[in-house]
Amino acid sequence: MSSKVKVLGFWYSPFVARVKMGLKMKGVEFEYVEENIRAKSQLLLESNPIHKKVPVLLHDGRPIAETMIILEYIDQTWEGPPILPRDPYQRAMARFWVNFIDEKCLNTMLKACWRTGEEQKKFKEEAIEALQILENEIKGKKYFGGDEISVVDHAGNFIAYWFPLISSGMELITEDKFPNIWRWSSDYCNHAFVKENLPPMEAMIPKFKRR
Amino acid sequence: MSSKVKVLGFWYSPFVARVKMGLKMKGVEFEYVEENIRAKSQLLLESNPIHKKVPVLLHDGRPIAETMIILEYIDQTWEGPPILPRDPYQRAMARFWVNFIDEKCLNTMLKACWRTGEEQKKFKEEAIEALQILENEIKGKKYFGGDEISVVDHAGNFIAYWFPLISSGMELITEDKFPNIWRWSSDYCNHAFVKENLPPMEAMIPKFKRR
Repeated sequence: MSSKVKVLGFWYSPFVARVKMGLKMKGVEFEYVEENIRAKSQLLLESNPIHKKVPVLLHDGRPIAETMIILEYIDQTWEGPPILPRDPYQRAMARFWVNFIDEKCLNTMLKACWRTGEEQKKFKEEAIEALQILENEIKGKKYFGGDEISVVDHAGNFIAYWFPLISSGMELITEDKFPNIWRWSSDYCNHAFVKENLPPMEAMIPKFKRR
Repeated sequence: MSSKVKVLGFWYSPFVARVKMGLKMKGVEFEYVEENIRAKSQLLLESNPIHKKVPVLLHDGRPIAETMIILEYIDQTWEGPPILPRDPYQRAMARFWVNFIDEKCLNTMLKACWRTGEEQKKFKEEAIEALQILENEIKGKKYFGGDEISVVDHAGNFIAYWFPLISSGMELITEDKFPNIWRWSSDYCNHAFVKENLPPMEAMIPKFKRR
């Protein structure tokens, strides 16, 4: 009997995109269930009662929450190309950069977009500081892990694909200020596997313009 | 040739205690280097240039930062009792609760201690909400993973051992309000391996009373 895999998500979520890509990398068939942010399903509330957030992975009915925890579970459960490097040191480095992007970049970039006045100024400064570290890290490399795309690049999908859409007019990441992130963003979005698995931009524009 | 392992830390840090215990569980010999919070060593600044924080593990000169990343590295690198459960689902659950304790409990508890006025009130409420979830999780179990002490309990070392010291007078965790966390805290601190590896209370009291 083959196992049953379900993903609860929002189609426009960068975190859900990371989980979907992880499953596709491993060739795992799954059922995708679209959630409604204003009326979350009973299944979502029961599967992630503490955070009540997507993505949630259900494997034979057992729920797992939080993007990186789900990805590590997928990596350990199914055969196929590794999601995290197998070498312990490289794996630790990948975890470090995923954490850095999630905690230092995304967090401050979102707040720089959504807050106003002095608060916005503060978060913009923090975002620039974090992005400068990322700029130095990607310098001279095609992807964060080297020549091949990896879990760290997928963690940065928000920076490459979502942020330019929601930050219009803010000019936080320009070719001039962050040439290496700019170049990496283009390479990331044009990578064949990524391109196939990112939500379509023509649906994203009206979705995020409404906000 | 045996490998060289070094830990940079503060003796009174709950995070450093977690790393030291991880190495001791595996029977790894290491050199412990005490850092000065007011004059961090060149080695620390070079080993963790981004966060400039302890703990840092150096393995044959290669630095690894961040408590959970270090613990996962130790678990993957050395033989011995597992730090994280081997079963992928149990491992995902352990990661979930470690994250919950680190992000939701410690964060709010510290702010409830250090902030004042309205801010303090807000963080106190958030801390109580998070602790209530933890209270339900530990109910009916000796330790978070069941009968045996595990990585989740060690993540909670701050709650059991440090918090009562720094929160004196706040009465956030009392036997009355959180009977299961109260009982677990006592079991945790009296566990033979833990007792041997926590910083001595007689040194902790003057250290934290000065703040």
